Parts: sequence; structure tokens; C-alpha cells
Amino acid sequence: MQVKLLDHTRLDVADTAISKCWDKSVTSDKVCERMERVANKNKHASTIEHLVYNFDIDGISRACLQEVARHRIASYSVKSTRYTLKELGKEDADIYEFYVKSGEPLVDNALFDQLYTLHELIRGTTIANDKLKYCLPEAYKTSLVMSINARSLQNFLELRSSKSALWEIQDLAAAMYEALPEDHKFLFTKFVNGLIKV
Amino acid sequence: MQVKLLDHTRLDVADTAISKCWDKSVTSDKVCERMERVANKNKHASTIEHLVYNFDIDGISRACLQEVARHRIASYSVKSTRYTLKELGKEDADIYEFYVKSGEPLVDNALFDQLYTLHELIRGTTIANDKLKYCLPEAYKTSLVMSINARSLQNFLELRSSKSALWEIQDLAAAMYEALPEDHKFLFTKFVNGLIKV
Amino acid sequence: MQVKLLDHTRLDVADTAISKCWDKSVTSDKVCERMERVANKNKHASTIEHLVYNFDIDGISRACLQEVARHRIASYSVKSTRYTLKELGKEDADIYEFYVKSGEPLVDNALFDQLYTLHELIRGTTIANDKLKYCLPEAYKTSLVMSINARSLQNFLELRSSKSALWEIQDLAAAMYEALPEDHKFLFTKFVNGLIKV
Amino acid sequence: MQVKLLDHTRLDVADTAISKCWDKSVTSDKVCERMERVANKNKHASTIEHLVYNFDIDGISRACLQEVARHRIASYSVKSTRYTLKELGKEDADIYEFYVKSGEPLVDNALFDQLYTLHELIRGTTIANDKLKYCLPEAYKTSLVMSINARSLQNFLELRSSKSALWEIQDLAAAMYEALPEDHKFLFTKFVNGLIKV
Repeated sequence: MQVKLLDHTRLDVADTAISKCWDKSVTSDKVCERMERVANKNKHASTIEHLVYNFDIDGISRACLQEVARHRIASYSVKSTRYTLKELGKEDADIYEFYVKSGEPLVDNALFDQLYTLHELIRGTTIANDKLKYCLPEAYKTSLVMSINARSLQNFLELRSSKSALWEIQDLAAAMYEALPEDHKFLFTKFVNGLIKV
Repeated sequence: MQVKLLDHTRLDVADTAISKCWDKSVTSDKVCERMERVANKNKHASTIEHLVYNFDIDGISRACLQEVARHRIASYSVKSTRYTLKELGKEDADIYEFYVKSGEPLVDNALFDQLYTLHELIRGTTIANDKLKYCLPEAYKTSLVMSINARSLQNFLELRSSKSALWEIQDLAAAMYEALPEDHKFLFTKFVNGLIKV
Repeated sequence: MQVKLLDHTRLDVADTAISKCWDKSVTSDKVCERMERVANKNKHASTIEHLVYNFDIDGISRACLQEVARHRIASYSVKSTRYTLKELGKEDADIYEFYVKSGEPLVDNALFDQLYTLHELIRGTTIANDKLKYCLPEAYKTSLVMSINARSLQNFLELRSSKSALWEIQDLAAAMYEALPEDHKFLFTKFVNGLIKV
Repeated sequence: MQVKLLDHTRLDVADTAISKCWDKSVTSDKVCERMERVANKNKHASTIEHLVYNFDIDGISRACLQEVARHRIASYSVKSTRYTLKELGKEDADIYEFYVKSGEPLVDNALFDQLYTLHELIRGTTIANDKLKYCLPEAYKTSLVMSINARSLQNFLELRSSKSALWEIQDLAAAMYEALPEDHKFLFTKFVNGLIKV
């Protein structure tokens, strides 16, 4: 998978927001220390909702998408299989490129067979995409833009970096954390459960 | 698919809510007429958010679930494939029961083959569910409880009863509308696009 | 203030939702024990979003409303001062009935004076409500219907039953807890911070 | 009032999001034309949720705040009267600076009197802010950081630029529109109801 940060809110916007609440623009804390204290330690988490991250995520499976999209406080624009399935039917389609590998040879072989069958079906018939797509294995790759604020991202990272989370979404959580601006990472460090080297 | 309404808010709660705004408990309108006028015609839609419907939805595909779950102003509890996949590996599993039929013989045959292969794989190996589930075709059946308020349901029905929506979610929209209490249906009639006989 | 529960979702709806996730309708737990374990101890809090409570709240101040309405995962229908301010101008208006008493005589006297002045202003002029309402003290009473799911209500009760919360919203939190159905209270007990006798 | 835009998402992020859905990075449209067509004309409004605007809003009344905060799909950090009320009690406090003028002399005089009384009360007593604040007239000025995505902002501008909206929130809607980056304004033009010269 590839995860790229397209844009993000400047860190000082959240600091301005914190200043509003108590009308204190001057503080003896450094900005990071105050944000850590207010948003994380004192759980005044709404102050970091002003920080929004726009991720470009490519090459995760639709199995993983099922879990990602359950995070409702976020915005998603996802590649439509209804509109793009024809790409799998192209004569020169490289089947190997269309699915996330599980690392289990028996599973990955089955995936290749499934997608090769579907590739043939698309080429040889005039069946509508809306029917054909029912054969797509959940390993099928998708692509999305996901925008999420810092509070909701903390929740995402905490739940999805857990060892009991689906292996692929653990990787996604790590990649999203890595893609964050260096000066924002302190807000999320304690939510990544030690799976990510920080 | 089966859609059953588990519970719902009484209609008069929304009427009480409307009365609050203008402090008028007495009206010459009938309750339904006032709600139609305030919530639908005058677009004061927040007044019908107080009405919540709890649906038990069984036997839709995970392809359909992908689209349903994109409606973020709703609550979902969904059957976990991670925890329940073993049922497909049971010796007496009836493969035909595990997937939504597309109506296209070539597609449905491919689905049977995919799921039979997966059935064998589950029985013959010790591969973890989290890997095996990557072979699940999107036609695989799932089950969920979905709770949604009347405002968000109007939006759901309007978008998903459209002729350009996925065929299965059109059926779901119709079944959800049908499952509503008779005295609540007037709130949704104009959002079902004529696909549903009302 | 008066807090009345207009309607609520049946408790077993959340239990059905929990059963969905693991496909287990039979359990050795009692319903309450399983919900306590899944939703509260294991933090699978989305399973109790299916439970929605519709409160009729009367006689809180607009100061309190400012804080209540900051809880965004809820639905509100509130008495409009723009449309109802004329009631304060009625000849026989009982000024004492229009504001929440603070318990501080100096404050309460000032409130009476403010509202008496406004009463006179409304009667003697043709100034629009949208201008006159700028004189309303925050103690002015309002009335609303508020619908909120169990997960969001846990958060509300935890934050607003704190000793550092505004005194009036502490009272509101206690009254909302008291208005809950007896068999639902176990879900909220640990969120009421000992301020409420349980 | 003063409205300043602290930060915003780059416009091309929404264009990237639109490209994802159909997997078309090349288009004959210009970026603006495609966004106008997809998000506004075709009502695929979720594609512009990726655009978030962070406003610094200063000097609106708490009457206006009551209406602003009812927009729940947004994030707010608001000056706390509980923590900052002491500023009104300072010996050199300029009472005129603390409230929004209604333009009606009788109302504005009453507001001055109310706030002068409160000023004296704060100075002369040891009553807690949490009691004193009940005397604050709704004209009392507040300050906030508000972050809102483009979809929710379209809804805000449409409802609040209406001639039937509260006069002050009409001014706020106009000021927020004016504060937007020039190249983003086309997304909102049709939602500002002709009250704002575009």
C-alpha cells in the first residue's frame, strides 16, 4: 500500500483554539506541551478537531476498506468498482497487480484463480459490472482519499494499531502515522500501542 | 434478504418536538399534516431526527454492505467474518446458502466455485481466518442491526431507491420502506422515487 | 427543571446487535452482564448506539442550553425565543416564572430587574423580537426535546456530572439519569461520578 | 465582528478525491467546472467534505452563538464565560466594548445598564462566576475558532444568509463567505441567496 498526506491543517490553529477557551494567548508552556496537556492529559479533545489530515491511500484491500469505513467521523472518496471494473478485463491486465497478497500461498493462489476467472468473464461476456462485481474477492485493491480530524484519528490509531486488529489495517495505521508531519506526531504517539517505532 | 423492524420511536415524539419550537401544542393541522409541512415542505428536517428506526437486516451481500455503511449518520453492528468464517468450513455447510445470487448464471456458478474452494481450504488447513477471508467474494452474505433516524433515512431512501443505484441496495431500500410502521410511511413516500409502490 | 422520558429503545435491541457481531444468540451471560462486558468493559461502545432516549426537558436556562448543545451527537428541538418572546410581554406575565434562580440573592434580584425592564420594553414598543432578545439574561428559561443514544449519553453524563461542571448542568445530568428506565441504568452508573445516588 | 480564515485545505485535494471515484485523473473540464458539476449539480457532495476551513470569529453575541452551535457537523472552541467573566469586573473595563449593538437605542441602553450592574456586582462581591454569568445578556460578546467542511458550510450559508435568519447571523454568513479564499468561492456562490454581492 501507499499512503501519502495530501494536505493538513497547521498545528498552530489548534493552539489558537485552545487560547480562545481561556482567553490566554500567552503561556509559559511551549505549544506542544500545552496541546499535550489540554487535549490528551485533560481530555479536552475537541480542541484538536480543528486539525484535519487528508490522506491519499492506495492499494489496500476492500476487506480493509470495510473496516476503515466503519469510522464514521471522517470523509471518504473511494474508487468505484461499478465504474472501474472494466480495467480488470483488459487484454493486457496484470492479474497479480489487482489484489493484496495475504502471504499464505494457498490463499494467494486461490485469489489469482478467482481474479483470472473474473478477467475472462469480463472479456467474454456482456454481463453488467453490477453483477460481475459480486465475484470480486475481498483482497481486490482499492484506492481512496480519506480526511479525518486529529481526535478521530487518535481513536482510529488506538483501535487499529492493536495486535488484535486485522493485520492489514495495523499496517495502514502504521503507514498513516508515518505519513503525518513530524511536528504533529506527538499528538498520536501514545495511541499507537507500541506497534509503531516512535 | 430479510428486513425486520426491531423497534422505533413513537411518531408523537416528533410532534412534541415540533410543538417545542413554536410553543404551540394546539394546532388546527392533524399531526401528520403538520409534520409533513414542517419537516418536508419547510425543510426543518432536524425535527424528525428524534424518530429512530432499528432494523434487523439479514442476507445482504458484503458488496451491498460496502455501500450501506457509507451512510455515516447511522449505527451499525455487523456480523464479523473474522469471528464467524468457520461456519463456511463445516462438513455439512450448504454452500448455496452463503451468497447472494446475482441472477446471472455465469456469475452465480463462479461464486459457487469460489466458495466451494474456500470451504475446502478452511477444512483442510490451519490458515487464520484473517487470511482466508481475503478470498471471500463480495456476494458473501452478511447480517446486521442498523439504527437510523428519520432524516438520515430519507436521505438513504432517496439515494438508494434511484434507478442508478446498485440493484441490491434498491431492493434493500424497498424492504426497509416496507418494514416501516404504516403510520410513519408518509414521511418517506416522496423519497422513494416511484420504484416502490406506495 | 422537569425532565421526562418521552420514549426509548427497548434494551433487547442492543443485545440483538451484540449477538450479530459474533453470531451468538445463545449466551451463558444474562443480557445485562453481556452488555456491561461488551459495551463498557471491552469498549465495543458502538453496540449501544442502537439505544436512543428521547427527553423532554423543561425549565433549564439558556446558559445551560449553551453547554448542552455543544454535545453534537444528539438531536435538539428547542423553544425559539424569536417566536415566543411575546409571552414575556403579556400584561399578566409572572416575571418570576421566566428565569432559573441562581440561589444568590444579588444575582436573582438583578435578573428580576432585567426581565422586568424587558417586559416593559416589549409592551411599550414595536421593536422586533430579534432585537429585544439581545437583552435576555442567560438565566432565561427554555424548553427542548433532546434525543441521544446511549453511547453519547454516557459521555454526556461523565462530563456533566463532574464537580467541575456548571452547577445547573450537574442537576440536569442527575435528572436525566433519574428519568432513565430502571433496567437501563446499569449502563450509565459508572459514568455518573458518585454525584448521583445509585 | 471580525472573521479571519486561519487555514484551509487546498482546492486540489477535492479534485483528487473526485478523480478517485472514477479513476480519471485526466479530464477535459477545468478543475472548477468539474467540482461544480460533481459536487453541486450532481449532488455528490461528499467529495467536497475534504475541504475544511478554520475560521477565527471574534465579537459575535452569545445569542448568535446559540444558533451557530446548532450546526453539529463542525468543530468549536469557544471563549468560556466561566473562566473569563472577571474581565468585565476590572476597574477600567469599557462596558461599551462587551456587547453587540442591536441598533435600537432602547435595547442598547438597557444592555449598557445590565452590563454596568453586572460590572458592579463582580467588583463588589465574591459571588462565583457560575452564578454571576446568569445575568449576562445574550448580546454579550464571545469569540471562537470554528472549523467546518465545505459541504456543511454550504448548508450553513444557505440557511443563514436567508432573509428570515437572525440579522446578526446573516452578517456572520456574509463575513465567512468574504473570508474564503477567492478560488474557493465558486463552490458557495449559489448558497448565499443573493444577500451577498458576488
